[in-house]
Amino acid sequence: MERSFSDERQSGGFMIRVGIAGYGNVGIGAAKAVEASSDMKLKAVFTRRDPEDSVFNNVSCAVLPFSSACEMTDEIDVLLLCGGSATDLPEQGPYFASMFNTVDSFDTHAKIPVYMSAIDKAIEAGTKKTTAIIASGWDPGLFSMIRLLFESVLPDGVCHTFWGHGVSQGHSDAIRRINGVKYAVQYTIPIGAAVESVRSGARPELDPSQKHLRECFVVTETGADKSEIEAIIKKMPHYFIDYETIVHFIGTDEFLSRHTEMPHGGMVLRSGNTGENSHMMEFSLKLDSNPEFTGSILAAYGRAAFRMASEGLFGAKTVFDVPLSYLSDKSRLTLIEELL
Amino acid sequence: MERSFSDERQSGGFMIRVGIAGYGNVGIGAAKAVEASSDMKLKAVFTRRDPEDSVFNNVSCAVLPFSSACEMTDEIDVLLLCGGSATDLPEQGPYFASMFNTVDSFDTHAKIPVYMSAIDKAIEAGTKKTTAIIASGWDPGLFSMIRLLFESVLPDGVCHTFWGHGVSQGHSDAIRRINGVKYAVQYTIPIGAAVESVRSGARPELDPSQKHLRECFVVTETGADKSEIEAIIKKMPHYFIDYETIVHFIGTDEFLSRHTEMPHGGMVLRSGNTGENSHMMEFSLKLDSNPEFTGSILAAYGRAAFRMASEGLFGAKTVFDVPLSYLSDKSRLTLIEELL
Repeated sequence: MERSFSDERQSGGFMIRVGIAGYGNVGIGAAKAVEASSDMKLKAVFTRRDPEDSVFNNVSCAVLPFSSACEMTDEIDVLLLCGGSATDLPEQGPYFASMFNTVDSFDTHAKIPVYMSAIDKAIEAGTKKTTAIIASGWDPGLFSMIRLLFESVLPDGVCHTFWGHGVSQGHSDAIRRINGVKYAVQYTIPIGAAVESVRSGARPELDPSQKHLRECFVVTETGADKSEIEAIIKKMPHYFIDYETIVHFIGTDEFLSRHTEMPHGGMVLRSGNTGENSHMMEFSLKLDSNPEFTGSILAAYGRAAFRMASEGLFGAKTVFDVPLSYLSDKSRLTLIEELL
Repeated sequence: MERSFSDERQSGGFMIRVGIAGYGNVGIGAAKAVEASSDMKLKAVFTRRDPEDSVFNNVSCAVLPFSSACEMTDEIDVLLLCGGSATDLPEQGPYFASMFNTVDSFDTHAKIPVYMSAIDKAIEAGTKKTTAIIASGWDPGLFSMIRLLFESVLPDGVCHTFWGHGVSQGHSDAIRRINGVKYAVQYTIPIGAAVESVRSGARPELDPSQKHLRECFVVTETGADKSEIEAIIKKMPHYFIDYETIVHFIGTDEFLSRHTEMPHGGMVLRSGNTGENSHMMEFSLKLDSNPEFTGSILAAYGRAAFRMASEGLFGAKTVFDVPLSYLSDKSRLTLIEELL
């Protein structure tokens, strides 16, 4: 008999059996979140790395190769996919969704419809009926939910999303590929005047380069030409050329002591009107660790995916499809009494 | 045959037929929101007042007594209940939910479970199956959703709600009941130091009186004893005695020119941790017109109530039960492409 969220939960002590696929920074964060949950138990971590690698020393469950996953479909209620969006998830998402309820933080906005369609097809062709909640990090994810909520309750208005202060891995990687660069990090920073312009209710039209500046901290190899590197960064197509870009050259010690964390965050703002009256809505995140927070969201949506599957709501889903109560381990009455 | 949201919507031009019960400030705001919606048509306003009253001069639909509602159950897809929580909704909520899909902004937090149970019983005993989304304003309502979302994605943390800067009708009424007071308004104002203490991640324990101060603007009758009135206000049990309270005596002209609007707003803040890392989440509203914004939310949840009923999801519901996509007039693919 299928395990069911709603039935067995009533008897108390019900634990959702969770697997994690991919044990990078997000996977490590997701494991922490699962282990801290009162209603979840970490059952297995699946990895492409050597399971004897020291990164797995603190893992409290089985560490297994990806190829073992297909033997554990009856032992895992939901699998948190913690791979990257560029190459991991387009392959892993459909593969695992054909066997497991899944969640992921797929974040290539423009490719979401194609990805979702691939997941739906895999589920239809799969060996069991499953639920896959895709793109459930914080953007896409929480920020998407807020954009939808804001637009729905205040239709006459404009919405702006700002990212940062935080590390962009893509931009940091782009700098690191320049000859003569030893270490580099790029922080995306909202431009205060742009934020204030939105807050004023002026409904400005702003493209991303008018809303953000890019601040880079770079350590060069000995003998590298700093002014040339700075020029290459500032002229780099797509990444920097349209943005106000600030480049700082620093030493290795300063880099390693001050620029190895992964903070991020951002804001969703909507200004709008009902008749003559104006209103301002804001949502913001300030995160010390982007991957740990993302892993924590995945755990909450893992609970929701298992519950939706228990209710027969199969297929590819997004955060727009999930009632908020499905994210919580609390009963309906407790939620109403404590939080409504 | 029952009208169905999902089927007929596909053919385009589908309009949800909306009724409004109660035409005070919230009802007027809800009517504006419905009339501005692309997929809603205002069908009737039900009132206890004389339908010839001048307040109805600009209403574009039928204005009818409450007693006519029972004859229009086949002509209205959802009824927005815009009465007050103290005496109107406890009676009107169950009565109308037995005949119509409804939404309301019932806001007496402590009485929600009892109210919800009365609605559920009325629906069970009613003449048709209906869906009633209760307590769907901004608090309870949007703020509740954010509290639930914040707690679910960041379980190790504390959440604080601040209200204001805005008018408290209950506190304003309490001042107006004092002998010698001609006009009065009370603004609830978050205390900046308390907000900053939460933002710091210190997880302070704060009761409402440590988070808010109360600023009162009072116009007295000729000859009234201002110092006595100020003392009565500041010592008033429940309303003011526990709070830092500031009383200003002003003239009638200043009152009428500067203190007759109904702004409100507030913030939900959560600070928390994933392991060693700390995170801060914030949601805020700054509203020029509390009732118009509340009416606008009711319109969006009216769409959701009708859609849930079309799908057979009957009974009393809260904002926790509603997938966010149900609030929008856009298709699933459009939402994914534009907002995810």
